[in-house]
Amino acid sequence: MKEHVLIVGSMAFDDLEMPYGTFNDVLGGAATYAAISASMFSPVRLVGVVGSDFPPAVLQQMQERGIDISGVEHAQGKTFRWHGRYAADLSSRETIHTALNVFADFHPKIPDSYRTSPYLLLGNIHPALQLDVLAQVERPRLVVADTMNLWIHTERKTLEKLLRQVDVVSINDEEAKDLTGEGMLRKAADAIRAMGPKSVIIKKGEHGAALFDDDGIFFVPAYPLEVLRDPTGAGDSFAGALLGVLAAQGRSDRSDRVAMRQAMVIASTVASFGVEGLGPDRLLSLEKSSLAERLRAFEAMVSYGGPLPALP
Amino acid sequence: MKEHVLIVGSMAFDDLEMPYGTFNDVLGGAATYAAISASMFSPVRLVGVVGSDFPPAVLQQMQERGIDISGVEHAQGKTFRWHGRYAADLSSRETIHTALNVFADFHPKIPDSYRTSPYLLLGNIHPALQLDVLAQVERPRLVVADTMNLWIHTERKTLEKLLRQVDVVSINDEEAKDLTGEGMLRKAADAIRAMGPKSVIIKKGEHGAALFDDDGIFFVPAYPLEVLRDPTGAGDSFAGALLGVLAAQGRSDRSDRVAMRQAMVIASTVASFGVEGLGPDRLLSLEKSSLAERLRAFEAMVSYGGPLPALP
Repeated sequence: MKEHVLIVGSMAFDDLEMPYGTFNDVLGGAATYAAISASMFSPVRLVGVVGSDFPPAVLQQMQERGIDISGVEHAQGKTFRWHGRYAADLSSRETIHTALNVFADFHPKIPDSYRTSPYLLLGNIHPALQLDVLAQVERPRLVVADTMNLWIHTERKTLEKLLRQVDVVSINDEEAKDLTGEGMLRKAADAIRAMGPKSVIIKKGEHGAALFDDDGIFFVPAYPLEVLRDPTGAGDSFAGALLGVLAAQGRSDRSDRVAMRQAMVIASTVASFGVEGLGPDRLLSLEKSSLAERLRAFEAMVSYGGPLPALP
Repeated sequence: MKEHVLIVGSMAFDDLEMPYGTFNDVLGGAATYAAISASMFSPVRLVGVVGSDFPPAVLQQMQERGIDISGVEHAQGKTFRWHGRYAADLSSRETIHTALNVFADFHPKIPDSYRTSPYLLLGNIHPALQLDVLAQVERPRLVVADTMNLWIHTERKTLEKLLRQVDVVSINDEEAKDLTGEGMLRKAADAIRAMGPKSVIIKKGEHGAALFDDDGIFFVPAYPLEVLRDPTGAGDSFAGALLGVLAAQGRSDRSDRVAMRQAMVIASTVASFGVEGLGPDRLLSLEKSSLAERLRAFEAMVSYGGPLPALP
């Protein structure tokens, strides 16, 4: 039985300076990427804010994918805009300008119809707002939260309070080190788990992602691409797809170790398509058959023919 | 039936400036690391050169591990010495000084008793010398070669000639990009394979290693460590263990796809121990039982409970 995924976070336009050209007004925002990815698998409920410049056609396209947009607030003013510049090999980026616009006053309001969503993704927003979302919903079966360096440095106490209330933290490697002061990922993950979350997912971009939980460590390599076009939103696509896959099966990591690991493989593969396109365009055009084909390639990529033999 | 691995390359002393202290006269050299690792699995034949300052006790220790040192040349003068300085997080290093010493005139002489070794590791030396080794031996069943940026830039033609005669190239990610001009690893690997080697192993340090061959791609993540002490020689330990494991089973990638992949997993795990110690000390003390235990942890780390389910 497919269950609902509630996603709260930013919706944006991005101006992207890529090594191969500059692209303006690219659809962006963590919640956007996550919702598009999750909706491949499960019905999604979206909470965010857009300005009066946000095209109705985009919202309509989301609706057609099974994303409930009744929680998307329409505010007077402009939509959040991020202007970024990527390095030549796309392995790093700098922020040229951030215009929060209507996002500056964003206070997530969870519609009554959303209150009993079994799966919740708290996108990277102020941890006080993430806590406020938790206060507005019935305790979901699984809560995944993202965060960023800004909150680690400026809102430490609030972030710590949040961490005590979430099941899974999804965080990148630098942030994990920043949050814990630990240089080794494994120790950083242990330290984060000691702060509350039962599971920690550390995202390493082109180097894959690792899950640390009661069962130990699970590592999923990133699928090696022939074309990398735009890494924006890859972590959000990953998190959205992860919850979408779990929700589609009505499973969570608390009940099922295998479900979480398999969902990570699928989510990583979804994200690998996402970065092949500019903005979310490849995600929007992705067919189940293409995803299934790449999943078979992924399985071959990590298979070594069963259990290892006894040591020679 | 355990077969012999012939290893040709540098033997050295390293002066290591680590973030936690400076260490002089640390045993080093690509062939040293490779031979120590390979000898965990198979008998090894070693060809290199040492100066009159090289301690007989070290050579004796090698002999006791099943390493035939009759091909180690004793030259007048000092042993090759590398002085390196590591960054605070050990993710990069710079060369402070290289004193080639007796290594400057190294011309590998393969003893008659070594000529029919089924497995050959051509450590990173001048490609003309690597070719010279190939000319001195009966065609081995499997030839693995390493190289470096210096030869890519200064000895391109000779390197290309070498590549046409080896089965497997073991190379790090930056070198692969350098050699081919391709920014995406997958394309770089394809380009290297087009130059001759049937298989390419791209080493990514803390991010693992990938094998590209006729069967596609195989990826082995690095085991996440709690302690990283010294990455020196990790790639050499990997290559040595890879050949040692294959030789111990009398298998090669040309006959057996699974053997190569399983050997990569074991070799990566051996290398993960190596970097926990300073120089090769952890490799020298490594017991089969510790290796077996970490291999079980590795298997758990990449296992997601069998084939993926149909997409939800």
